[in-house]
Amino acid sequence: MPNLNKHNKKFTYKVHLRWTEQRKGIIASPDKPEIELSTPPEFMGHPGVWTPEDFFVAAVIGCLMTTFLYQAEKHKLKFSRLDIPGQGILEKVENQYIISKIELIPHLVISSTLDIDNAKKIFELAERYCVITNSIKSKIYLTPDIEVKNKGE
Amino acid sequence: MPNLNKHNKKFTYKVHLRWTEQRKGIIASPDKPEIELSTPPEFMGHPGVWTPEDFFVAAVIGCLMTTFLYQAEKHKLKFSRLDIPGQGILEKVENQYIISKIELIPHLVISSTLDIDNAKKIFELAERYCVITNSIKSKIYLTPDIEVKNKGE
Repeated sequence: MPNLNKHNKKFTYKVHLRWTEQRKGIIASPDKPEIELSTPPEFMGHPGVWTPEDFFVAAVIGCLMTTFLYQAEKHKLKFSRLDIPGQGILEKVENQYIISKIELIPHLVISSTLDIDNAKKIFELAERYCVITNSIKSKIYLTPDIEVKNKGE
Repeated sequence: MPNLNKHNKKFTYKVHLRWTEQRKGIIASPDKPEIELSTPPEFMGHPGVWTPEDFFVAAVIGCLMTTFLYQAEKHKLKFSRLDIPGQGILEKVENQYIISKIELIPHLVISSTLDIDNAKKIFELAERYCVITNSIKSKIYLTPDIEVKNKGE
């Protein structure tokens, strides 16, 4: 993220949740499309609707991607594809339910074997500088899957 | 959340992020509507698109609401409206940018002054049992705004 080390600025992220019915609500943020939110179905919620647990995992994956994109530009890495499947595990730790871990296996496609080390380094930087992973207690397991695919293949 | 104290079960939340172009991607989760995600505009991202920081705040607010709904049912609290505006603050703490705090001012509408104490207790329980607030380092400032509105007013 640019300029973060240059100035100690504060940034504010506003979100508004309105309860609608049963175990559902509508999440809003200025100038963005509204999203329906629900308790997960396994806790008497509603299927097919985003849950707080999903948003937590989405925040982590999203931050790792956006930090990766910034670092890739800074370190001049070219790539043609980036997919990040991930999952968060909710379980009891010290008698309390928490999201204990988040597992991510990003799949990156680059065009030259010469870029493999640079790509690995950028994943490390993304993990180190991601403001969301630095704000949580969950353990992060990031295992990059780097594929080299020459043009024309 | 029901049954959480009865069984030490594990629950998995799967999310997939696909980079599309520039600093944007598409977030998906099984059977749920896709959501566009971006780096925030202040970090060379795109306006009008959900960001990882927004999702982090949404996860906290969403979890507090869903835990409140569960506790309200358990403690037989009737209410006609629940709105939760909130904001997350990103700033430098010990030389590292993190989401340092999340401020929430839930507005709850109940129909009797006799329910005020019960409502306050339920907000405390929601904060204590919310699995997301228990998974993060950010400090939570929850200040309920409880309004009594008699029917017919």
